[in-house]
Amino acid sequence: MTGTLFGVGLGPGDPDLITRRAARLIEAATHVAYPSLAGGESFARSIAADLIPNGATEIRMDVPMSRNRAPAQAAYDAGAAQIADALTQGNDVVCLCEGDPFFYGSFMYLFARLKGRFAVEVVPGVTSLTACAAAAAMPLTARNEVMIVLPGPLPDDALRDHLRAADTLVVMKVGRHLPRLRALLESEGLAGTYIERATLGSQLVLPLQDALDDAPYFSMILVTKGADPWL
Amino acid sequence: MTGTLFGVGLGPGDPDLITRRAARLIEAATHVAYPSLAGGESFARSIAADLIPNGATEIRMDVPMSRNRAPAQAAYDAGAAQIADALTQGNDVVCLCEGDPFFYGSFMYLFARLKGRFAVEVVPGVTSLTACAAAAAMPLTARNEVMIVLPGPLPDDALRDHLRAADTLVVMKVGRHLPRLRALLESEGLAGTYIERATLGSQLVLPLQDALDDAPYFSMILVTKGADPWL
Repeated sequence: MTGTLFGVGLGPGDPDLITRRAARLIEAATHVAYPSLAGGESFARSIAADLIPNGATEIRMDVPMSRNRAPAQAAYDAGAAQIADALTQGNDVVCLCEGDPFFYGSFMYLFARLKGRFAVEVVPGVTSLTACAAAAAMPLTARNEVMIVLPGPLPDDALRDHLRAADTLVVMKVGRHLPRLRALLESEGLAGTYIERATLGSQLVLPLQDALDDAPYFSMILVTKGADPWL
Repeated sequence: MTGTLFGVGLGPGDPDLITRRAARLIEAATHVAYPSLAGGESFARSIAADLIPNGATEIRMDVPMSRNRAPAQAAYDAGAAQIADALTQGNDVVCLCEGDPFFYGSFMYLFARLKGRFAVEVVPGVTSLTACAAAAAMPLTARNEVMIVLPGPLPDDALRDHLRAADTLVVMKVGRHLPRLRALLESEGLAGTYIERATLGSQLVLPLQDALDDAPYFSMILVTKGADPWL
């Protein structure tokens, strides 16, 4: 009997925001897999560190960051092959995923490679989206409001139409695009809130105009047009 | 010293998807508050039922469903007044919220009434958004994809532009709008997946064309245009 691959969302960073189901799966794991970016520490592993049993087999996928997709694809190919070996031998594998596995997550690359061949179960997690809203004390959406989630690297023209069409805007993956995004929002008369590392000790919430230009990859801009005071 | 109001996300329905922080707050609560809709059972309370201490004071807000906002506003006014009394007497109050408090949640109405006067902390929860994606085994967004979240009650004209502009579409609050939404998506050549009561025992996942016309309020349509196989 082959094992099951669990794609387990860990939430935005605070280990207390791990769900009870995710915690139990990790505590019982014999095999855990996780990505690390460009040779650095694995953020996913750091969130779950206290739960990983001593002696669990760890499958680490070192994913290079580059515009060229081929090196990352090779890393996921190699990781998927290791995971497939463990599953074939009858072991369950718990893949640790920052946030939610299916929301801008690297688990999707493993899912694409392994679904169909193996049983896969996804355990949803708290996304950075609502974690940032909580950190900034900004309600996202009520009633019939429309929310648009936009990756910051998109070009201005693609972003501008969405900025105008949304009641609530969520700009992901801000990073080095911050100065450009700030100028774009200002040109549209929109005030944003900047959040980085939500729920971690180093969390920062600032009016967008006060944010420094060199934002980390894990940063977000929230804009709520807020016509409705919800009273 | 006044107490703190905790707006606690409980996730989409399966009690196992409650976060560890939410579980601890509820287990230690002396005062819990929650909405119930139109005289029915409180879905939020049912998710957390096993965690609520015996003897905790329960503040129940019975929210009528009507197009006229006044009766619901009165219910939130009354609930906020009861919560304010408990906070003023120095008690913390844990408000139970389906999904995430700031994502189409009724907690926003309490937040609007009580912020500023009292300390408020929001504990983010797993949203129905990613719970439905997990249930349907449908990755939502990767790389630079744009996701648009739309409430189903919006009129067709408002919906159509968003349908065209998104890579990933999430239609919330489908309910009785299902036949109209299905016709609209079909007219745009889009195939959707229908999910109701994600993560509960009664969960249903169907191609949209096979869904029955009388959908419950807690139902969603997901459309992923899926140009990218994530390989």
